Amino acid sequence: MVHTASITVPIIGYVHTPYVEKFGVPRQPNLVDVEGVIEFVAPYDQPAAFEGLEGFSHLWLIWQFHQNRELKKTSEDMGSNSELHETSAAESFRPQIRPPRLGGNEKIGVFASRSMYRPAPLGLSVVRLDRIEVIDGRVRLHIIGADLVDGTPLIDIKPYVAYSDSISAAVSGFAVEAPKLHPVYWTRLALWQKHQLISLHVLSSNQLPLIERILALDPRPAYQSDGQRDYGMSFDQVNVRFGVQSDVIWIKEITAR
Amino acid sequence: MVHTASITVPIIGYVHTPYVEKFGVPRQPNLVDVEGVIEFVAPYDQPAAFEGLEGFSHLWLIWQFHQNRELKKTSEDMGSNSELHETSAAESFRPQIRPPRLGGNEKIGVFASRSMYRPAPLGLSVVRLDRIEVIDGRVRLHIIGADLVDGTPLIDIKPYVAYSDSISAAVSGFAVEAPKLHPVYWTRLALWQKHQLISLHVLSSNQLPLIERILALDPRPAYQSDGQRDYGMSFDQVNVRFGVQSDVIWIKEITAR
Repeated sequence: MVHTASITVPIIGYVHTPYVEKFGVPRQPNLVDVEGVIEFVAPYDQPAAFEGLEGFSHLWLIWQFHQNRELKKTSEDMGSNSELHETSAAESFRPQIRPPRLGGNEKIGVFASRSMYRPAPLGLSVVRLDRIEVIDGRVRLHIIGADLVDGTPLIDIKPYVAYSDSISAAVSGFAVEAPKLHPVYWTRLALWQKHQLISLHVLSSNQLPLIERILALDPRPAYQSDGQRDYGMSFDQVNVRFGVQSDVIWIKEITAR
Repeated sequence: MVHTASITVPIIGYVHTPYVEKFGVPRQPNLVDVEGVIEFVAPYDQPAAFEGLEGFSHLWLIWQFHQNRELKKTSEDMGSNSELHETSAAESFRPQIRPPRLGGNEKIGVFASRSMYRPAPLGLSVVRLDRIEVIDGRVRLHIIGADLVDGTPLIDIKPYVAYSDSISAAVSGFAVEAPKLHPVYWTRLALWQKHQLISLHVLSSNQLPLIERILALDPRPAYQSDGQRDYGMSFDQVNVRFGVQSDVIWIKEITAR
């Protein structure tokens, strides 16, 4: 039995985004300008705790990979006893993962990646701070560019300090540049459905560039050559069905959720 | 009684630096090029877990503010029962701090700062990855520029991805630019002691620019006008005594620890 030391940290809030499910969430922040809202849990929602934050354009979010399969399994099996949980975390440690960026076949070390399957299921994302809102004395932060599924638990926020955090000359291994964008086309059926949904106010026309951009990033689990298969993605109020043919993304259907 | 949800994360290793004590540790990473070593705890020390990391020039470290006073008090009072610990964290939440950057008088929100007195006592630092060493099948990472006291517990490392993490145009509130550097002079006594320590191999001449740089950043808790007072700092194998007069740092004494 392997035992490691551990620390317990509170969840200070939850992040709300139009990403209803993990599928479709971009693999890094700021690739798609979706709007999100952070709601804080008391006592962390007091306006005083955010004074001075309005001077910063960007924020770091440290959040929990709460849809991590291992985590779910562990808490279901073990209950909330943290001692058992930790032991299990060390015992179930898998040192390598297959990043989608490398086609899903090549393995690399988990610490050379930002994979969710890591000892501490913590994610790190930089987002734009749009505005700070106070409703009934409670703070909500409006953010842009989160790569988080709706309901993600938040552990901490820190202001982005350009002089120490921005290292433009950093060499970034296999993640050298932003992922390439695929062309996105609508089939005739999908185009018609899109116009219907807009006229019914299920879909707003502001959301179209977001949906196209998410698909242009190719949200499939790993690059696949199977051009026959269709994929489904939920985003805000709609379901989108799409397929990929010779690097082109075809939106085949868009319907209300 | 306030109760919040929480998560427990393992400590995967410890960071070793020449910063013997908190006093003197720079307030952001990469201000002083000190060398550090990360030693990982089993099972997180396997070389396979680091494969591919050699392609990255910089790393994020997520670490524990283990010298946080509140934390110490809480764990002493409460034992290791995490339920009580969390309750206490929420109850002892102080929404504002006085950052040294603003002279130690002005208060701002804890979430507008990187203060250690925050709900989750987690720090975030970017460091340079110098090299990966494997000794007896266990990984050690050599890093440069850590702003961490010796023995800091490590929660996670993530590769620095320039295309998403580097935002040079970010606006950074009151932390707009790197802290100004003060001129540093040695008194005659300190100069003589320095030469003695070098000849006795207690001090290496490579360490002198590091010591001068740490002092140039003015490590005092908050800017003070009291020119009479002396301050002591321990660094690696030496103790340094210094004073400040009209913005000039005077090294008055350097002795073996």
